[in-house]
This record gives sequence, structure tokens and C-alpha cells, in this order.
Amino acid sequence: MSEQKLPTRAEDFNEWYNQLVIRAELADYAPVRGCMIVRPYGWALWENIQASLDQRFKATGHLNAAFPLLIPKSFLEREASHVEGFSPELAVVTIGGNKELEEPLVVRPTSETVIGHAYAKWIRSYRDLPVLINQWCSVVRWELRTKLFLRTLEFFWQEGHTAHATFEEAEEETRRMLEVYADFAVHEAALPVIPGIKSESERFAGADRTYSIEAMMGDGKALQSGTSHNLGQNFAKAFDIQFLDRDGERKFCWTTSWGLSTRLVGAIIMVHGDDQGLVLPPRLAPFQAVIVPIHKNDDERAQVMEAIAGLQRELMAAGIRVKLDARDGLTPGFKFNDWEMRGVPLRIEVGPKDVAKQTVALARRDRPGKEGKAFVARDGVAAAVSATLNDIQAALLAKATAFRDARIRDVTTYDDFKEAIETGFARAWWAGDAALERQIKEETKATLRCIPLEQPGATGACFMTGRPATTQAIFARAY
Amino acid sequence: MSEQKLPTRAEDFNEWYNQLVIRAELADYAPVRGCMIVRPYGWALWENIQASLDQRFKATGHLNAAFPLLIPKSFLEREASHVEGFSPELAVVTIGGNKELEEPLVVRPTSETVIGHAYAKWIRSYRDLPVLINQWCSVVRWELRTKLFLRTLEFFWQEGHTAHATFEEAEEETRRMLEVYADFAVHEAALPVIPGIKSESERFAGADRTYSIEAMMGDGKALQSGTSHNLGQNFAKAFDIQFLDRDGERKFCWTTSWGLSTRLVGAIIMVHGDDQGLVLPPRLAPFQAVIVPIHKNDDERAQVMEAIAGLQRELMAAGIRVKLDARDGLTPGFKFNDWEMRGVPLRIEVGPKDVAKQTVALARRDRPGKEGKAFVARDGVAAAVSATLNDIQAALLAKATAFRDARIRDVTTYDDFKEAIETGFARAWWAGDAALERQIKEETKATLRCIPLEQPGATGACFMTGRPATTQAIFARAY
Repeated sequence: MSEQKLPTRAEDFNEWYNQLVIRAELADYAPVRGCMIVRPYGWALWENIQASLDQRFKATGHLNAAFPLLIPKSFLEREASHVEGFSPELAVVTIGGNKELEEPLVVRPTSETVIGHAYAKWIRSYRDLPVLINQWCSVVRWELRTKLFLRTLEFFWQEGHTAHATFEEAEEETRRMLEVYADFAVHEAALPVIPGIKSESERFAGADRTYSIEAMMGDGKALQSGTSHNLGQNFAKAFDIQFLDRDGERKFCWTTSWGLSTRLVGAIIMVHGDDQGLVLPPRLAPFQAVIVPIHKNDDERAQVMEAIAGLQRELMAAGIRVKLDARDGLTPGFKFNDWEMRGVPLRIEVGPKDVAKQTVALARRDRPGKEGKAFVARDGVAAAVSATLNDIQAALLAKATAFRDARIRDVTTYDDFKEAIETGFARAWWAGDAALERQIKEETKATLRCIPLEQPGATGACFMTGRPATTQAIFARAY
Repeated sequence: MSEQKLPTRAEDFNEWYNQLVIRAELADYAPVRGCMIVRPYGWALWENIQASLDQRFKATGHLNAAFPLLIPKSFLEREASHVEGFSPELAVVTIGGNKELEEPLVVRPTSETVIGHAYAKWIRSYRDLPVLINQWCSVVRWELRTKLFLRTLEFFWQEGHTAHATFEEAEEETRRMLEVYADFAVHEAALPVIPGIKSESERFAGADRTYSIEAMMGDGKALQSGTSHNLGQNFAKAFDIQFLDRDGERKFCWTTSWGLSTRLVGAIIMVHGDDQGLVLPPRLAPFQAVIVPIHKNDDERAQVMEAIAGLQRELMAAGIRVKLDARDGLTPGFKFNDWEMRGVPLRIEVGPKDVAKQTVALARRDRPGKEGKAFVARDGVAAAVSATLNDIQAALLAKATAFRDARIRDVTTYDDFKEAIETGFARAWWAGDAALERQIKEETKATLRCIPLEQPGATGACFMTGRPATTQAIFARAY
């Protein structure tokens, strides 16, 4: 870690983010432009995200599998809007084993096509349905403007792919997985996301309906943090995924896909981080607490380290992910700053006075200075630490929710709209079309993020066209 | 599942394997030649392998991370023997975003180069060492003759990459990870592997020393099931991985790498499988036990299913991975065969008589017929199931060990050698060189699998040259 300070978020949010990702050792740039190395601290965060989502996927009946990285280029061309959406972004393998390939292969940008091909082989009858499969992998999309975690040539994600007998079941699955994402985002990542449906122009290439969860970052911009697509029968028809139904007729399946990626790490950084660095939600933090020993001489050191050994064991036994920072030659102050920058939710200080008084000092990452500091009795410390971690988790969600709500403005005119998107989201009655969305984007750089599932229920006049509208939409500039 | 019988292993071991992999739904062929889809049942097995290894990696101080899939082609050329070994097998991306790339990129065949590049950036001083990182990913090698799990264009694995201050530490790490692999293979996969060192001609391209664990398959052939490489300073010099030592001097690091792949699934199939299908070791099996209800009418059904609900809860609470096969319209006999084919270690039958007598029937997969069947009291059933699973695990290891030992022959002449490798491994005093290994391979198709770490300690005459030899080597035909 360098001792140099980060730029503040107010000074330069973008640069604050870029420096923080590198200095907290979450990720690094790879030799190939736009590719990313996820370093151990960042990967540990992603592993916790994976474990938490994977549990939810399995609880809703999904199984994991692995489909191939390389896809015949012709596969993408079978679904018209899919190829239109993805062909500008493909990485293409043309040489294998020193020979020019007869058919070029693409490195998967997403796997609807190759999985559709497999499902066509595997699915015979209604008895085989639903098929509920997920895979954890990386995909490659040739992006021009990249940013660590948010948009990289290769990124890590999960992609769920399911096949159903009816439209209704597919739609139910699409919505169920959106709920799973929202539940995860709110309760694990402390991100108060807005679940909604995308407009036609923001749909996934090949989907009939795309749902997403949208989060507001610390600069008021939006980040699409997970998507769930009802693919209708588009891929079933392109890949001939048919089944023999109860009524003896062969029918095309209805399929869905849904994905959440390492972008979510970017969301956690940009929603919870402050000018000192990361602030990680306890439920996902690689280390929930760090113990920093404080001592001036060898006698004190021996005394303190002995007390810490028991403390660490007790916290680990209580299931708390605790790190002991016993590095030599570094001052406690340096360590405090270091772990603050890395966003560890709780710091536990143990010095000779604490040993004598049978106490430890707890310092909350989310509340700097004295306000966030408490001395608790050594006896029963695990319960106190657990309770404090729960408090921090709740406080992060409450703070992010308040921040978001303060920056969502209900607007009725284009002028108000333009002002609103300078600092956050604009919410408005909407009855426009794709052409109008395009015009708004060109003029303001804001896009229609979603039509939230939760609607006021009344009607209003579209803020642009004045036409009667039955739904409100959320617009924002987005990452 | 088709009702058609598998060929027996004696009839056609190869075909038995190929059909079993498909019919047990472990894996399937992908549209691209030589690529593999790992289906949910196979992936669940791999996830258990991953979890078990990952725990061991973390317990020995390793952290996970993720390095990029795409590597500049020039990187491979920096280490002379590395490029020589891998260049015939590369998949090359030449087009990105519809444009010809200035420098072609290879899809990683292994990651020493790109990780070496990162380590050169990250490592500054002896304080940064050792660096102990692992990644779980897939790699691509353009193989010509492929076989599901054993040799595919893309395969799934973990690759550990570490950097150290001294040769001794690197060698210690290389050996430690070999031990981790051997411990895992023996205690989790019930594979009695032989840990040893490779001859120069079988070394990893770029390594100073390669160690491996070698397993004997059900047809007597060998399968290299995990490798650990001491890379010396070869990659450190090629990628300039230097550190400032305690003595104030800049020195090159010593690096290692070690990997274990989805080949291990192939080993489990070929070591434990029998003519009825898979036999999975309980510690890795996706389902350790399957409950099959037996009933003739609705009354019986209600009674049996109620008893099973409690049974299932109790087994799950005891941490047993249990599956209930409640499929309608299939006979118990069909289900028995199906789960036998899929290798579930223990079948639990519950019929009306069992409900009345408060018993359940346990049928062991590894002991067909009456010999493997026992009726146990419903009370305390979880303990009985756990104990039986432990017995099965031990029995599989004992059986595989006995099979292996009976097929390792100590040979002193080339004629004996040729006979030995028809059915298993030949073990012999060895003082030959690479040219002689090549000759043996051409004449017999057998290769030097390893020089086992465990040696008799005496000396003997090389079975080929007659020269005095201090070590014995193991030769076999190999997958």
C-alpha cells in the first residue's frame, strides 16, 4: 500500500474508483488491453458473492454444469437479433493447433446458443422439463472503453439457462430469478436495488422481456447489477428445442436466461465506499474483523499476543471471519489506515490496558472517529462482535437507501429531468417510444434504466409527450 | 437412461467408458470437436472434488484469484522450452471486435506466463514472499485424439502458482502440493496413487522437476492424475520476477506450479466402475444415498412416503447427501438399475413391511446382491448409514489397492517387462536415458510413469542396460 492519499469522491469520483481498486488490491490490469486480473482480496469477495448466490440458486432447484468456451461462429447467426447484438463484440479463434480452422470459433460472449444446442439434444418430453441449469464462468466481449469490474473484455459471472413447457412457467422463472437477485443485493450486499423491466431498446439481444436490478452509485449514476431474460421461443426455434407434450404434440420450449457478474463488486465499491476507501458489507467481506495488536515493548507484546490468541480462536469458533494483523515493523496507525482503505467492517484493538481491564476496543469502519468506537468486555466478546456486524450491515443498507431516495426526483418536465440526472435518477410518467429514448440519450446521456415493478398505480401525463401514461420509468446516466 | 446394457469392461473397456460417461449423464460432446459439456451430475462430482481440494489449499496458506483467459502470443515465446511444448497445441484469437488484432492472443493452455508477468509487478521485496495463489478455471489445448474427461480441447482444472525466495522453499512447496494431491486422491477419491518424480523427457515444458501422482485404471493402464512442478528460475528469468532480499541484493524468485483437472473424474470412473456402471466414493458422490420407495397401491404409497419424509429429514440433518427418487411410473427395479449405473454408494429401500417393522433396507453399491444388503432399525438409521458409507469408502480404497498391487510386477528383463505392461505396471531398476525411454515407447507403447518417492533403498542392475541403478522406475501404457 502506498501512503499517498486517494483523491476524494467529490474531487474526482472516477479517479477515486480507479485508484481504490488498485490500491486495495482488488484487481489489476492484465497485459491484454481491457482484461482484468482479480487479485486474491477481490476474488475472496467474489467467492462470498458466489457462495451466497449459489445457495439461493440451489434452493430454487437449479443445478450447476459447465458448457464449452468455444462456440461455432455460425451458431450465433441462427438467432437474428442475437447476432446483431453480439457480432461487433466477438473474439474469434481462427487458428487451432497451428492450422487455419475451417469454421471460425467465437469465445463465448454468453451461452444461449451452445446451451440451446445441448437442450435440443437432451429434452425429449414434458417429463424432462423444466431444465434448470446454471454455470459459473467467464465470458469475452470486445469492449472499447473498459473499467475494472464494470466493463472488461473478459468478465466473470454466472449465467442461468432454463427451459419450460409454457410461457407462464418461463415468465415465472424469469421473475423468480430477478427476485433472487434483488433479495441477494439487498440482504447480502446492502444495495437497495430497484427491480424493473427494460424498455424494448435496452433489451438483451434475443429476449422478449428483460428485467434488471438497478442500483444508484455514490455519484448518482446507475449501474445495471443483474438481468433476467424471458427469451420466449426465440432460441427454442433457432436451435430446435422441442418436447413432446402431455397432449401428444411436439412443441417448442420456452427458455430464460439470467446473469450476474463481477460488476457487482464495482457496485459495492461505488455505493458503500468513502474518501478513506472501501466499506464492505459484513455479510460479504473477506474479513469481517481485523485484530490489531498494540504494544510498545517485548513484554507488552507477549502479553497482548497471548490475549489475542484466545480472542481469535473464540471469534473464529463463532463463525466470524477474522484476520490478525501481526505484521512487524508497521505502526498501529499505519495498519488502521490500511484496513480502513480495504474496507474491513470492524477493527478490534488490543493493547496492554485492554488486557489488564479485560476489554477490547471495537472500531466501526462505517462510523469514523469516536462515534464508531466502543470498549466491550472481553467476556462475551463474540456476541458483541456479531451484534455489531449485524448493526453495520443494517446501517449500510439504511444509508444507501436514504442516499438513493434523496436523489430520486419525480419530474414532470424535461428541464426538471435534466436537472435531476445531474445528481441522481429522474422518475417520470412515461409513454414514449424507442425514438424518443434515443433523442433523450443524445441530448442528456441519460437512458431509461427500467420501469420499476413497483408502480404508484395511478396514471399521469408522460413528461415528454404529454400523452396519458400508466407507468413511471426511471432514467439516469449509467455505467 | 436407456435400458440397453453397457458392454462389459472385459469385452471393451474403452467402449464401456465412453458409453458410461454419456449414459450416466456425467458429460456430453460439445458441437466443437473435442470439447466437452460437463452435465450437472458430473459437475456436482467435480464441485465436491473442488471443495475438498480448495479446503486443503487454503489450509496450506493459498489464496484464490483469477487471471485472464487471453495471453499475448509473444509471452509464450519468452521461455524456450515452454513455447516448444505448447506451440503445437494453441488456440489463437486473431480477430477482436471485427478487426484483425495487431498481436494474436492465445487462449491460455496454462498460465505460468501471464501470472509470471503479474508477479513481476507485485513482488518487490522478500517481505512479499512467498506468494501462494491458485485459480480454478478452464484451459484450452488443441489435442487431436480426445476422450471425455481424459483429454479434451478445453478442460477444467486448478492451477497453483507460487513464488519463493529460495530453491529450497520452492522445492518444499512443490513436494507439499504433491502430498496434498496424494492425500486427497487416497482419502477422498479412494485412489491408491503412486507419488513420484518424472524423468526428464516427461517433464512439464519449462520445469526443472516435475512430480506426479500416477493411478492404475481398471484395465491396468496408468493415468497421470495431478502434477507439481518446480520451475526453478526459468519463468522468473523470462518474466523478470525479482525481489530485494534481506541482504540488499536483487535476486530472481524461484517459482512452482501445480495442477489437477477433470481427468480425475475419469480416474474415478475407470478405477471404481464395474460392469453395472459407476461406483462413486461416498466422500465425493453427489448423492451418497438414494431412497427408493416401494409400494403397490395408493394406501401403501401414502404410508411409505410419510415414513420417508421423516427419514430423509433425519439423514439430511446428519449431513448425508441423500436423494429421494419419487418418480412416478417407474418400477423399483428400473430405479435400482438406474442408480446402480450412476454409482450412488448406498440405496435405501422403504416398503410397507419396513414401515410396519420399523426397519429400512440398505443395499451397498460396491457389493452386489444379498451380500451387500442389510436391514437396519429405523431408530438410529443415520448412524448406520454414516457407518456404512465409511465402510464403503474404505472398501473401495482397499479393493483398488489390492487390484493395483496384484498388477505391479517387478521385472528384471525386457521380456518380463513386455508381459507386465500387458496387464499393469512394470517396476524395475532403471539407469537408462531419454533415448532408451524413446526406444521402449516405440517398441512397447509404455512410458516411464515415474520414479516413485518410496524406494526400496538398495541398488540393482538396470533391466535394460545392466548398469548399476539406485532407483526403481514404474513403466506402463498410459492414457
